[in-house]
Amino acid sequence: MDRLNQQLQFIAEAGRLRGVLRQTTLADPARRENSAEHSWHLTVLALALGEYAPPGTDLARVAAMLVVHDLVEVDAGDLSAYAPPPEQARQLAAERAAADRLFALLPADQAGPMRQIWDEFEERATLEARFARALDRLQPMLENVKVGGGTWRQPGITAADVLAKVELIADGSPRLGQFARELVDQAVRDGILTADPSRAGK
Amino acid sequence: MDRLNQQLQFIAEAGRLRGVLRQTTLADPARRENSAEHSWHLTVLALALGEYAPPGTDLARVAAMLVVHDLVEVDAGDLSAYAPPPEQARQLAAERAAADRLFALLPADQAGPMRQIWDEFEERATLEARFARALDRLQPMLENVKVGGGTWRQPGITAADVLAKVELIADGSPRLGQFARELVDQAVRDGILTADPSRAGK
Repeated sequence: MDRLNQQLQFIAEAGRLRGVLRQTTLADPARRENSAEHSWHLTVLALALGEYAPPGTDLARVAAMLVVHDLVEVDAGDLSAYAPPPEQARQLAAERAAADRLFALLPADQAGPMRQIWDEFEERATLEARFARALDRLQPMLENVKVGGGTWRQPGITAADVLAKVELIADGSPRLGQFARELVDQAVRDGILTADPSRAGK
Repeated sequence: MDRLNQQLQFIAEAGRLRGVLRQTTLADPARRENSAEHSWHLTVLALALGEYAPPGTDLARVAAMLVVHDLVEVDAGDLSAYAPPPEQARQLAAERAAADRLFALLPADQAGPMRQIWDEFEERATLEARFARALDRLQPMLENVKVGGGTWRQPGITAADVLAKVELIADGSPRLGQFARELVDQAVRDGILTADPSRAGK
């Protein structure tokens, strides 16, 4: 197969992400969000909120990460961030196998660097990956507020669970982390997120 | 309203693009594509096909253009590329009014540069805009092939109409333009696109 056809095959496989539904519910239209449009929305966040990344963050690389970060879901599907650890471990293995398959559709000189972008996002070691991960965690919170609860209404989820996830936002961007904590507090006050029982009365 | 809240309002309005349906039909799932997931797919094309942009093309700027190019559709909706000129003119005016409203949601220092990215895409004068426009025109062709015709099956559309649109692809990327012409020829041979009557028998 010639080079362009290899690239087009990758593009076609990637396109299947439009058929992968996430846990997030959209307000308008009222339906579950798919991972392709979610990825796009994250690139809008990166453009609008780039100033909250630490100085020196390469925002073009952040954008590239956001474009490819969910590609593996065309094979592995989406899993709730609140799924129990054994499920998370199975998901991780499935996503790695998907990355092995998908990026290898590209010509070898592209497959390596593209896989590196995905690995970097997963490893969350660089400024770029930490900021990209922060946005990936912030966006569903914004949607939850808009629909009046969304995934926060899942049985057993409390503010403490959500605040634990917010740590990753603060790690990528202190200002956005602070905002996300305020969002959680407001959600509890609005009754769309269950208060942490251990903090009752505080 | 503070700066972050202005940015979040822009992000929320942009998110409505997930509810704007395009003419393009997807193969799997079989449904119309929305403009948000279309925009994401274009950023995948930019990552995979960047080597076919002319030397010196800033691919990060291409990606930013692709992210914002359809935002105006949250107000103006999507129009078929084959719509008659008066409809196209009305659409253009509606899109400009939408750009005036949407980008102004951002703090002024961001609104200007973001509007410039959108204007640049529209004006198609720079290498970046010409390449971005080429990808925007190529992507629905790939989807049409996958569904066995798609928008090419609209009454009155012939290969000549499609080839006229392909000129814009060749203008942004000679190699992708050549590929798109071959795609049209193949679509005619496959009977999923009507041959140009004036070329009958050739």
